[in-house]
Amino acid sequence: MSRGGRGQGLVKNALHLSHDYARFLVRPGDRVVDATCGNGGDTVFLAELVGPDGLVDGFDIQAAAIERTRERLAKTDLLERCRLHPVSHDRMADFVAPGVSCVLFNLGYLPGGDHAIGTRPLTTLPAIAQALDLIKVGGAVLICLYYGGDSGFDEHAAVLDFIRTIPVRDFAVQKIELANAANCPPIFICCEKLA
Amino acid sequence: MSRGGRGQGLVKNALHLSHDYARFLVRPGDRVVDATCGNGGDTVFLAELVGPDGLVDGFDIQAAAIERTRERLAKTDLLERCRLHPVSHDRMADFVAPGVSCVLFNLGYLPGGDHAIGTRPLTTLPAIAQALDLIKVGGAVLICLYYGGDSGFDEHAAVLDFIRTIPVRDFAVQKIELANAANCPPIFICCEKLA
Repeated sequence: MSRGGRGQGLVKNALHLSHDYARFLVRPGDRVVDATCGNGGDTVFLAELVGPDGLVDGFDIQAAAIERTRERLAKTDLLERCRLHPVSHDRMADFVAPGVSCVLFNLGYLPGGDHAIGTRPLTTLPAIAQALDLIKVGGAVLICLYYGGDSGFDEHAAVLDFIRTIPVRDFAVQKIELANAANCPPIFICCEKLA
Repeated sequence: MSRGGRGQGLVKNALHLSHDYARFLVRPGDRVVDATCGNGGDTVFLAELVGPDGLVDGFDIQAAAIERTRERLAKTDLLERCRLHPVSHDRMADFVAPGVSCVLFNLGYLPGGDHAIGTRPLTTLPAIAQALDLIKVGGAVLICLYYGGDSGFDEHAAVLDFIRTIPVRDFAVQKIELANAANCPPIFICCEKLA
């Protein structure tokens, strides 16, 4: 324990949870989707998890994000196992065949970036619906939901309303939040496909 | 995967989460608290975790619950490392010295029991407040919050309001729920002491 103590790290933030869950889900050779490439950090992470025989399909509507991601993948020698699509993630089903083990979303603003640029409910909800279809049984759609500040609460409300309607026979939908933090820490959502 | 598939068990219910978290937190020789003995299942579980050199303080206001718990502990040869208190858990601080690594609460009705008999906000909130004081840095108060049905929503609302007020400098408070289940599945809450 460091001086003053910061606990043991039992309670994790949304980013750490999404990585823990992805590590549990993804096996070498799997196909997975990064629905929001952003700065490419998660694309690299997923590319490492699927290994040389796996495949990551990455989406981002911003050409600059796709370029940043391509550079990071090239630098880490992971580009060959990735396909990057400079299109909105609500066209995911046009590019990805069913049977992926994990789809990862970072919704809301780009952390560290411009809060005015972000995902929007109009495309987010269809994208999540497609992801739920593409996931294989035993796999999961993982969502880090950033909200508040300049990015507002519209998408936050739309996503939370939407996940409540996911059929409980087919998916276990778990929501994890920090309950005593004032500054809208991201919410983590896991939709595990049961059947 | 069984026929039809039921996922990989990535999404766990409140009871499983509380046990996973307690396994992470509790070391042999630790002192811990079962704030709601009920049928004694968690008391036995905690007594196994602390080992022969540890101590479990168990509370239940119902004499019958204390008796059931005592029988189960005797049967499993764990009674020696436990002290059972037939008093309300809002007197916890009278019996337990600070420095425990885990306090476990099952709030609401007794699963499988009479939904009309259960914990109530008037004693629950002071008990949680005491537990937060008794926990050592790195330890946590773990809560399974049953609600709905005959037991209503009063305690549910009071507990969720209360945990929002726990100082973020001292505790990381995590809330985990099943977001798409209709029948009020229990909510899991972890209050990890940071400082």
